[in-house]
Amino acid sequence: MITETLAGFVADCPAHSVPDATKHMLRLSMLDWAACGVAGVSEPVAQACHALALEEGGVAQAHLFGGGRVPARTAALVNGATSHALDYDDTHFAHIGHPSVAVFLAALAMAERVGADGVALQHAALLGIETSIRVGVWLGRDHYQHGFHQTGTAGAFGAAAAAARLFGFDATQVAETFGLVATRASGLKAQFGTMGKPFNAGIAASNGVEAALLVANGMVGNPEGLEAAQGFGPTHSGLADEAALEGLGDRWLMDSISHKFHACCHGLHASLEAVGESGLSSTLDVAKIEVTTHPRWMSVCNQQAPSDGLGANFSYRMVMAMTVLGHDTAALTSYSDALCADTDLVALRDRVSVFEDAALTEMQARVVITLDDGSASEVFHDLDTPIALADREDRLKAKAVSLVGAAKADALWSWIADPSQPTAFGALI
Amino acid sequence: MITETLAGFVADCPAHSVPDATKHMLRLSMLDWAACGVAGVSEPVAQACHALALEEGGVAQAHLFGGGRVPARTAALVNGATSHALDYDDTHFAHIGHPSVAVFLAALAMAERVGADGVALQHAALLGIETSIRVGVWLGRDHYQHGFHQTGTAGAFGAAAAAARLFGFDATQVAETFGLVATRASGLKAQFGTMGKPFNAGIAASNGVEAALLVANGMVGNPEGLEAAQGFGPTHSGLADEAALEGLGDRWLMDSISHKFHACCHGLHASLEAVGESGLSSTLDVAKIEVTTHPRWMSVCNQQAPSDGLGANFSYRMVMAMTVLGHDTAALTSYSDALCADTDLVALRDRVSVFEDAALTEMQARVVITLDDGSASEVFHDLDTPIALADREDRLKAKAVSLVGAAKADALWSWIADPSQPTAFGALI
Repeated sequence: MITETLAGFVADCPAHSVPDATKHMLRLSMLDWAACGVAGVSEPVAQACHALALEEGGVAQAHLFGGGRVPARTAALVNGATSHALDYDDTHFAHIGHPSVAVFLAALAMAERVGADGVALQHAALLGIETSIRVGVWLGRDHYQHGFHQTGTAGAFGAAAAAARLFGFDATQVAETFGLVATRASGLKAQFGTMGKPFNAGIAASNGVEAALLVANGMVGNPEGLEAAQGFGPTHSGLADEAALEGLGDRWLMDSISHKFHACCHGLHASLEAVGESGLSSTLDVAKIEVTTHPRWMSVCNQQAPSDGLGANFSYRMVMAMTVLGHDTAALTSYSDALCADTDLVALRDRVSVFEDAALTEMQARVVITLDDGSASEVFHDLDTPIALADREDRLKAKAVSLVGAAKADALWSWIADPSQPTAFGALI
Repeated sequence: MITETLAGFVADCPAHSVPDATKHMLRLSMLDWAACGVAGVSEPVAQACHALALEEGGVAQAHLFGGGRVPARTAALVNGATSHALDYDDTHFAHIGHPSVAVFLAALAMAERVGADGVALQHAALLGIETSIRVGVWLGRDHYQHGFHQTGTAGAFGAAAAAARLFGFDATQVAETFGLVATRASGLKAQFGTMGKPFNAGIAASNGVEAALLVANGMVGNPEGLEAAQGFGPTHSGLADEAALEGLGDRWLMDSISHKFHACCHGLHASLEAVGESGLSSTLDVAKIEVTTHPRWMSVCNQQAPSDGLGANFSYRMVMAMTVLGHDTAALTSYSDALCADTDLVALRDRVSVFEDAALTEMQARVVITLDDGSASEVFHDLDTPIALADREDRLKAKAVSLVGAAKADALWSWIADPSQPTAFGALI
């Protein structure tokens, strides 16, 4: 049922039916993704994938972050891993994943391969992102709790959707693409805190492109590989929540994507925003900090005493100490190995305690800061509180400037804001 | 624990420690695999993968079944799918998978890439096959029953082992390769009866090569990605049976690989051998046939009324009718769409009943044939009954001749029997 519904949506949804605000959100996510990708090229995971692609060579179909052009399937792998390398890209909390880094790369690589313009690229990416979120919600929380990384798993279906749309597949072919990618989709949370996490984004993007290419070449697997008995959902703790499909094509889950304004795991952001709103000065003597968060985050970003910058990205205790001591949690460079060993920081970190409360949503956090004089203040933040589109644009453009500099950020936005341009973006990256 | 143990084995096990009989079994499986690959090139799944590879192009590192040379990662994908296209390659019943089609391709592609000779190729393939079987047993029956296809899943670890050995990785690097491939390994039984099944072999081979290449380029995921909390085993219904590692390096599970002498799902073979031993003439009037088999096969190869040749490969009812009516179950061409619609065959097929009995092993079957006069005979076969190595060699050489002709079968065996030759096999395929 889900395959048939999504396949019809991907094959047939016309661009003119999409609200302007949704298209604008797509472009903001595209800017955010592209800036993260450009900024991510020197990360080890990006370098490893890039080296693999250059070793292999092949027909110059699609550009790579970091330079070069390679076949679309490989470009999607490299670019997906590269743009998730900093873990600074967008999140959809109901999907429980990072939609852009799985989908944009598949869409972009395939758009370059087929010579589509930016209008087609952006619409295909939107359908792919919407698909990945819907599949993520359909798989549900058990899937994530069991250990699967929706960015890689649901993301592969989103990447497949984008690639299939750019091929101009009919609904039957889109279903075949979903059915085939179902046996290929993968990605484990056991990789969190390692290069394997961004790799999961790359494999999602690559799997989607590969499945579409194979279907175009006549391969047919089980077209219900997603929901069939022993299909992807049933074998991967999928809830199969058909409510995930409600309003498809009318209500866009793209609209509820969250963007990161701190350079760490999204599970930490509500607590950081709360401290930011507390009005506390960083010079105060803090006796202890108590963070209360949704239980899901306890296995994701609650590293107690990380020793390197990557670990700090997944640690309430680290980021609470960082923000109170005035380290900029929005700057990539703040999350350093050196800071993990900083005496003052470690001393404060060890006075941070983390608690879970199932009554909170995954986008909410409560922080109690107790000073040496015994006085305490409680602050609360909900990431679901809407941000006006204009404010979001301002914050994302500022973030892009901080990531890649003003000139490149402007060039990226010009490329994105005028979708009539070619999709080849080699000069921009 | 399993990663550390297997990584040490793959990095350090010397070729001279392997018994000659085991090396000979490896070569017999290699002949069988190569013949299946050569014979499989015109299958649609092989054509689709081959077309993808040729579209992508790239550095000529490794030969393709069907012609051409492409990067090792892509060659492994294409060749894996091609050599499993006919589903006529070997099986290990305790592993619950087809080891050769996941591992030989990774070994061969990487051997060509690094310029290894046949001795190194064959030893790496042996270590890879042994790894895949051990991982398959470690994952256990629940993994398979839950819907995972060990050929794809455990096979990826075997492919990774072979590729890592040919790179000359130390135990730490082998463990990193296992850890990385753990987030990439996939393959679902929902694809059985479609092109997705041989595709699972290709993705296993390709995933193994890719992981080794990325580790060589500096990527490090979770080195315990196989057994860690939320690692591959725990998330994929893995039993984590450490007994799977017993005797590693001393006792070779390679020795207990089964080869197919009928061109259909291995789950059907015990029943076919039983009928073959029954002495029944095909001209007899058969009132009914009752097959009793292990319960696991009921969801694998018990299609009731397949309409095409691929479906016939997974149908007790079809193959029982075929063998009684004198159709050669060893010949690929017997399993045709036309035969599925043959009136006589369908009439007999509809008098075949299939039952399960958990007291049988998965390699045993019992067949009761009742004639029109009411007389019945019961026959039993156990595939685990040893076949002398010389007899096995005779049967596999005859099978290879039937698959690819005498000249090519001889050439393949010459290449395999003299491992000092280069690994490039382009002239042979």
